[in-house]
Amino acid sequence: ARLGLTEAIFCGSKSAAQIEHILDSVGPTLPLLLTRLEPIKFDELPARLRHQLDYDRLSHTAILAGPPPPTGDAAIAIVSGGTSDAPVAQEAGRTLAFHGHACTMIEDVGVAGLWRLLERQALIGRHRIIIAVAGMEGALFSVLGGLVALPIIAVPTSTGYGVTTGGMTALHSALGSCAPGLTVVNIDNGYGAACAAIRILNSQRARKGDGQG
Amino acid sequence: ARLGLTEAIFCGSKSAAQIEHILDSVGPTLPLLLTRLEPIKFDELPARLRHQLDYDRLSHTAILAGPPPPTGDAAIAIVSGGTSDAPVAQEAGRTLAFHGHACTMIEDVGVAGLWRLLERQALIGRHRIIIAVAGMEGALFSVLGGLVALPIIAVPTSTGYGVTTGGMTALHSALGSCAPGLTVVNIDNGYGAACAAIRILNSQRARKGDGQG
Amino acid sequence: ARLGLTEAIFCGSKSAAQIEHILDSVGPTLPLLLTRLEPIKFDELPARLRHQLDYDRLSHTAILAGPPPPTGDAAIAIVSGGTSDAPVAQEAGRTLAFHGHACTMIEDVGVAGLWRLLERQALIGRHRIIIAVAGMEGALFSVLGGLVALPIIAVPTSTGYGVTTGGMTALHSALGSCAPGLTVVNIDNGYGAACAAIRILNSQRARKGDGQG
Amino acid sequence: ARLGLTEAIFCGSKSAAQIEHILDSVGPTLPLLLTRLEPIKFDELPARLRHQLDYDRLSHTAILAGPPPPTGDAAIAIVSGGTSDAPVAQEAGRTLAFHGHACTMIEDVGVAGLWRLLERQALIGRHRIIIAVAGMEGALFSVLGGLVALPIIAVPTSTGYGVTTGGMTALHSALGSCAPGLTVVNIDNGYGAACAAIRILNSQRARKGDGQG
Amino acid sequence: ARLGLTEAIFCGSKSAAQIEHILDSVGPTLPLLLTRLEPIKFDELPARLRHQLDYDRLSHTAILAGPPPPTGDAAIAIVSGGTSDAPVAQEAGRTLAFHGHACTMIEDVGVAGLWRLLERQALIGRHRIIIAVAGMEGALFSVLGGLVALPIIAVPTSTGYGVTTGGMTALHSALGSCAPGLTVVNIDNGYGAACAAIRILNSQRARKGDGQG
Amino acid sequence: ARLGLTEAIFCGSKSAAQIEHILDSVGPTLPLLLTRLEPIKFDELPARLRHQLDYDRLSHTAILAGPPPPTGDAAIAIVSGGTSDAPVAQEAGRTLAFHGHACTMIEDVGVAGLWRLLERQALIGRHRIIIAVAGMEGALFSVLGGLVALPIIAVPTSTGYGVTTGGMTALHSALGSCAPGLTVVNIDNGYGAACAAIRILNSQRARKGDGQG
Amino acid sequence: ARLGLTEAIFCGSKSAAQIEHILDSVGPTLPLLLTRLEPIKFDELPARLRHQLDYDRLSHTAILAGPPPPTGDAAIAIVSGGTSDAPVAQEAGRTLAFHGHACTMIEDVGVAGLWRLLERQALIGRHRIIIAVAGMEGALFSVLGGLVALPIIAVPTSTGYGVTTGGMTALHSALGSCAPGLTVVNIDNGYGAACAAIRILNSQRARKGDGQG
Amino acid sequence: ARLGLTEAIFCGSKSAAQIEHILDSVGPTLPLLLTRLEPIKFDELPARLRHQLDYDRLSHTAILAGPPPPTGDAAIAIVSGGTSDAPVAQEAGRTLAFHGHACTMIEDVGVAGLWRLLERQALIGRHRIIIAVAGMEGALFSVLGGLVALPIIAVPTSTGYGVTTGGMTALHSALGSCAPGLTVVNIDNGYGAACAAIRILNSQRARKGDGQG
Ligand SMILES: Nc1ncnc2c1ncn2[C@@H]1O[C@H](COP(=O)(O)O)[C@@H](O)[C@H]1O
Ligand SMILES: Nc1ncnc2c1ncn2[C@@H]1O[C@H](COP(=O)(O)O)[C@@H](O)[C@H]1O
Ligand SMILES: Nc1ncnc2c1ncn2[C@@H]1O[C@H](COP(=O)(O)O)[C@@H](O)[C@H]1O
Ligand SMILES: Nc1ncnc2c1ncn2[C@@H]1O[C@H](COP(=O)(O)O)[C@@H](O)[C@H]1O
Ligand SMILES: [Mg+2]
Ligand SMILES: [Mg+2]
Ligand SMILES: [Mg+2]
Ligand SMILES: [Mg+2]
Ligand SMILES: [Mg+2]
Ligand SMILES: [Mg+2]
Ligand SMILES: [Mg+2]
Ligand SMILES: [Mg+2]
Repeated sequence: ARLGLTEAIFCGSKSAAQIEHILDSVGPTLPLLLTRLEPIKFDELPARLRHQLDYDRLSHTAILAGPPPPTGDAAIAIVSGGTSDAPVAQEAGRTLAFHGHACTMIEDVGVAGLWRLLERQALIGRHRIIIAVAGMEGALFSVLGGLVALPIIAVPTSTGYGVTTGGMTALHSALGSCAPGLTVVNIDNGYGAACAAIRILNSQRARKGDGQG
Repeated sequence: ARLGLTEAIFCGSKSAAQIEHILDSVGPTLPLLLTRLEPIKFDELPARLRHQLDYDRLSHTAILAGPPPPTGDAAIAIVSGGTSDAPVAQEAGRTLAFHGHACTMIEDVGVAGLWRLLERQALIGRHRIIIAVAGMEGALFSVLGGLVALPIIAVPTSTGYGVTTGGMTALHSALGSCAPGLTVVNIDNGYGAACAAIRILNSQRARKGDGQG
Repeated sequence: ARLGLTEAIFCGSKSAAQIEHILDSVGPTLPLLLTRLEPIKFDELPARLRHQLDYDRLSHTAILAGPPPPTGDAAIAIVSGGTSDAPVAQEAGRTLAFHGHACTMIEDVGVAGLWRLLERQALIGRHRIIIAVAGMEGALFSVLGGLVALPIIAVPTSTGYGVTTGGMTALHSALGSCAPGLTVVNIDNGYGAACAAIRILNSQRARKGDGQG
Repeated sequence: ARLGLTEAIFCGSKSAAQIEHILDSVGPTLPLLLTRLEPIKFDELPARLRHQLDYDRLSHTAILAGPPPPTGDAAIAIVSGGTSDAPVAQEAGRTLAFHGHACTMIEDVGVAGLWRLLERQALIGRHRIIIAVAGMEGALFSVLGGLVALPIIAVPTSTGYGVTTGGMTALHSALGSCAPGLTVVNIDNGYGAACAAIRILNSQRARKGDGQG
Repeated sequence: ARLGLTEAIFCGSKSAAQIEHILDSVGPTLPLLLTRLEPIKFDELPARLRHQLDYDRLSHTAILAGPPPPTGDAAIAIVSGGTSDAPVAQEAGRTLAFHGHACTMIEDVGVAGLWRLLERQALIGRHRIIIAVAGMEGALFSVLGGLVALPIIAVPTSTGYGVTTGGMTALHSALGSCAPGLTVVNIDNGYGAACAAIRILNSQRARKGDGQG
Repeated sequence: ARLGLTEAIFCGSKSAAQIEHILDSVGPTLPLLLTRLEPIKFDELPARLRHQLDYDRLSHTAILAGPPPPTGDAAIAIVSGGTSDAPVAQEAGRTLAFHGHACTMIEDVGVAGLWRLLERQALIGRHRIIIAVAGMEGALFSVLGGLVALPIIAVPTSTGYGVTTGGMTALHSALGSCAPGLTVVNIDNGYGAACAAIRILNSQRARKGDGQG
Repeated sequence: ARLGLTEAIFCGSKSAAQIEHILDSVGPTLPLLLTRLEPIKFDELPARLRHQLDYDRLSHTAILAGPPPPTGDAAIAIVSGGTSDAPVAQEAGRTLAFHGHACTMIEDVGVAGLWRLLERQALIGRHRIIIAVAGMEGALFSVLGGLVALPIIAVPTSTGYGVTTGGMTALHSALGSCAPGLTVVNIDNGYGAACAAIRILNSQRARKGDGQG
Repeated sequence: ARLGLTEAIFCGSKSAAQIEHILDSVGPTLPLLLTRLEPIKFDELPARLRHQLDYDRLSHTAILAGPPPPTGDAAIAIVSGGTSDAPVAQEAGRTLAFHGHACTMIEDVGVAGLWRLLERQALIGRHRIIIAVAGMEGALFSVLGGLVALPIIAVPTSTGYGVTTGGMTALHSALGSCAPGLTVVNIDNGYGAACAAIRILNSQRARKGDGQG
């Protein structure tokens, strides 16, 4: 928490035994976020721990001693292309909620149905930060970048096959976008996108507090 | 011309001497298309040949004994993202003209200024085939694919830098597009896109001639 | 269906529960095409849905409320190299049938047995559009492109090992072919090739209706 | 300027003649930013245009009818690793100045001399946004990300040789950083990093104006 | 043992039957190190062999007739970034112990928590050789290289996802580091790093023995 | 010459001064083959050496004290796709001649004009070894492999653009060919293909000499 | 068998049902070679077919109605680096035996124990063709190429991890070898190497028969 | 000099003006090493600076106020494959000399002529550290690693063409070597290899001074 971001445990490369060991050592009262916790690994944890964790099977995140659900107007919109991107969008949303930030989920607005995105342009514009989540060719990033003037954090996802397998095409589309000022995080990194948004919000808060700007 | 496509000379890997030799051997009356003929190489050719050639410095194409400019309504629209894509778009246009086909050039409709593209949607729809030319992240392909039901031949271009250097990102965006039914040719291959369009037009003509369909 | 192409559900990255949810929400009367539906995932669907679906285990496609089998002369030939390419060729064929188009399947004409392909040259030429399906080094695309003047849509497949693993070599062979005017879709994208063929057919129909050409 | 970002002309793939044409068509009073304008290309422009342009040989940027130099406390720090990164850092700085934003340049704080960076930690922390510019292995991004809680926009540069040639290693280091919440732009894209920072500042201003937060 | 390095059996690409065959043919008294022996493969070995082997489930190494645990001051420090790197660090440690060399394990000093590494700087400096183990973006290598003057052998690990999947980013960071004089071994090659350290120690011993220096 | 192959000097990475030094040290009577000697570098050599060398501007090879031109029936056919492949085909031919072997040059038989290749099938079959030279997508290799039962040594060339730039597509096509028993050398390595053919011929001669077979 | 090479069935991408179908259609008396037939797939075949097949679990090959084991002096040596390369070496050996050719297996002569290879130099030299099989960095190819003057067909294998995963490093080492005249087949392609050797032997036989050479 | 390694100036990405500025600011008495200083850039420096610099045109290094040439037995052997590797070998040698260390240069011992290397085995073994320099397929690294027990620092070079262009094959061969305990630096990084050797020597000296071992 040295940077105002509560430490998260990346479970992707840890065994259930190691995760159990970590949870036991931190104790049940510290708020803790676990990411990339596969259902099969979650089910291996002892019941005692499973009951303490708020586990979400879509995003593979678990929260220990998290805050109450955030309320009020959402400063952040999470805009995603298709249902295949839902796990990553949800990882971002859960990370935000864990840090006390509400968000608006705007789903299924892929570019193949451009009118669905255009219909939501005003809604999107009512936020302060956009997290955009898309796989395949990632055209959503450029279209959003040309439509709204807000900070946009692009999260390429690994959904796709053939040349889009693994997410490199979506990543490179985001980085090479003709729309100026997009920023990008690693493939499938919903957690990182949320942290980047929180850095921006914290920086704004600090400013308002000290009267600068 | 066995396939209804007049043979073209790819000059990219030939010396001026070799090109001179080829032109001398075919004789001045055969229609001939030369592509990838750099200005510096064109200038090395003997004056006698230079005067016979209709050379275009933007697209690096030269035409020998070509047909008169095509007239009438254009069946093909060439839609491109930015001025950097102009040489490739022009290579496609010159190849079409060489084969007697008119085209409509619709330029500077990149996705970063989406409204410019949307304003031209009706114009684009008045054609039978679309050749789409774009570099960088190639988002134009997906947006077009979601807007019009026509056959779309995507030509990724090599313009860009960093991750978009060389055109692989635009190529992969076209191939992995979430819009169904796009087809793609090699990077910078305006010539090939025009040939593909001619294959479609010829197939349609043959059909109408034989009363099928 | 905004583009004359009925929407398809890509099941590759959806769970059986999500697919069940989608099928229930669209209702049983809407024609629907499902692609990349693995047998194991199909078997997880409730019997009630399985009985409504026309499922094909070779191509991993399922059709809900599809049209009767198309009749009459086929405008499209699907030409493939080997039995390993059959699932992709079949995905293309099923997508065509779903949209009411017949096709001719011409299989096992890989280049290693060139005479088998040459023997079928006349048969292939009796169609208006060719969908070519091949893996490994994809030499079939260039040979076909040099033999017939029709529109050719190349579908590289991911069959192969070593340098041909995953289909990039077949893809690059199709894109870099010395035969002019080939067009290409993503690796294993039989669905997209069929959509591209339908775009061409629809464009031709529109034309004949309005007397242009 | 539709997004509050004045349009920039990317000159990397334009000839001097094309640039002259664009400048003549916009007229001399519109503020205009030109990027990637090589000295040799600048020198080809007619004297009449050269005199109107504020050209910077380090960053290869030119400004037409730009604002007076920004004054007051800088909200943005540009932190870079070595003198090879100076052109990219300067492109970011010039883009900011063109939009009226001051910045603090903190140079030569590469990780090989970690103490130089640690000595400037307090100075860096007095800003609201960090633009970090580094090539080679890009370790600077992770170190900064672990030291400060501010929004960090990483700009990988193409300086390096062998495995770091072209900037992919620095790019991947930034994207895969173990420090949470870094965001990244394309290799050498100082312009884009500045635009991203401006998006954040504008979003903060909008907020304060409308009393939200 | 011709080079003073006892032969090791790489079990990654061998069946349990082949490993059994090798163990039976060498006989139980020869010291032998087995690496990359998956637990599942170990469990397939006959009980008679399993009882002779000192198997370590973290590093997937097994030792037959190994020496007693090394005692005395450790000449080598193994410094690693996170718990995901523990198997590789342990493979290095076990290889050293098998050859009679003690080591100090310094774990969880990744760059995202730079102060944890700085606090251990003096401890690290009390050794003669550093083996550094890190995955993801591998920033640890450069930071260590700038902090200590000792020989550093970098072992990139394959932990990570997206652009860091498989370890190439960590590898390239180590090779392209701005800190001079780092050396590198293959991804996940804890065994090789230990061998490299032993080559250095043996060279030093030889020297002292023959009075040179 | 220890392997029956006279040593060749690869000049690609040597300066004219270094080449001069080598030629002076071997003396003028030793037969010597120089490859990759650019015209500009050849012209830098002192006249005294230039006059001793038999230099070929197409293949960039030079021969010192070579044998008289080989006579008699050629055992080797060099089959190439287009005029861009001529330099590499010629490097192979010159290497063969330098070692006393005749060859038949069969050019411009690329797959886009398949009939040109089929017309030469009988001619090709009158040889004992085929060296096949092709760039772009390298379909020639597979077609040849399916037509003739002879040993085929494929030389991919670097001619091409976009996805075929540099020769990797032609290389992978040759390696992944569906025709069984093709062998392959490095991109543009006409020299190596000739050496491979000579290894086969020498092995055959040895056999006949010792009465085996 | 049109090229003197009996057709082989590549089972890697075929289901047990498809293989059963092929075997039933060819009938039990035609000699047939099946490659890449995984044990699990072999076990799925009906007993009636399993009993007709000569199946080899090491190389994953099956032979139907094959010839008696070849006798007499072996013309071909198969030289391999380690036990991990045994399956590929064996695939080559089984393909040779299926075509009636004997071979000598020379195993475990990797370069890390150079003396083991040097001790077998004379034995290797008593053959007419060398098939060399090696994974990891493939240094064996260059060492062999420098030691013997015979035709060498290099088969890179996919054994390795980190940078050698999948066999590309061994492949590129073979192709880029400093030893002149090596030829190369696809990664793990023991079948293809055997076919290439048979092409050479057949070419030699034809020659001796017709008195040329 | 904080790590006992005098700071070096990498001139590859600096202009002559910048280098002049750096030299002027450090003053003429500080020992300074400049690397990657192209002859053309050196010639642009003012005569006053050129005269102070000890410039070496082979390795592109310049030394300011360097020590006298090192004398006595060399602890380090630099072993290289061909004359194309000489610049990199020399960069290593010059870096060592600048730090006061002698070295033995052993050149032209590439693996294609294995006997030349074997003849020098004893000479090589009389040193304490080996720096091995090789391009193309880098087989030299594995052969050396199997022959000598000393610490080996492999420097892959960028010499080669086709698959060996740029040095990645040599790099991967070094990293994936079957010989245990090789360490590797970046492509063409002679400077880094020398620094790594100096780290080892310094560590040994420290030890002997403090009586440990
Ligand atoms: N096999 C397929 N290959 C490529 N694209 C497909 C395939 N099947 C469906 N699609 C596309 O994917 C979209 C559906 O994506 P989704 O909304 O995630 O189901 C459809 O609109 C199609 O354009
Ligand atoms: N240095 C730069 N890097 C990335 N994008 C740029 C740069 N300079 C200008 N652009 C973008 O490129 C667009 C101009 O492209 P063009 O119309 O081809 O001049 C602008 O709208 C900017 O978004
Ligand atoms: N064009 C070429 N392509 C590949 N290898 C070559 C070529 N020319 C010469 N060689 C090889 O390079 C070696 C000479 O290298 P060097 O000692 O650097 O001149 C010869 O022994 C040949 O094996
Ligand atoms: N292990 C193998 N590696 C490479 N090619 C093979 C292999 N086995 C069979 N083949 C080739 O694949 C063809 C059979 O393909 P298929 O018709 O799909 O069974 C044969 O004609 C062989 O040329
Ligand atoms: Mg959808
Ligand atoms: Mg523009
Ligand atoms: Mg077949
Ligand atoms: Mg510096
Ligand atoms: Mg941790
Ligand atoms: Mg031609
Ligand atoms: Mg072994
Ligand atoms: Mg040499």
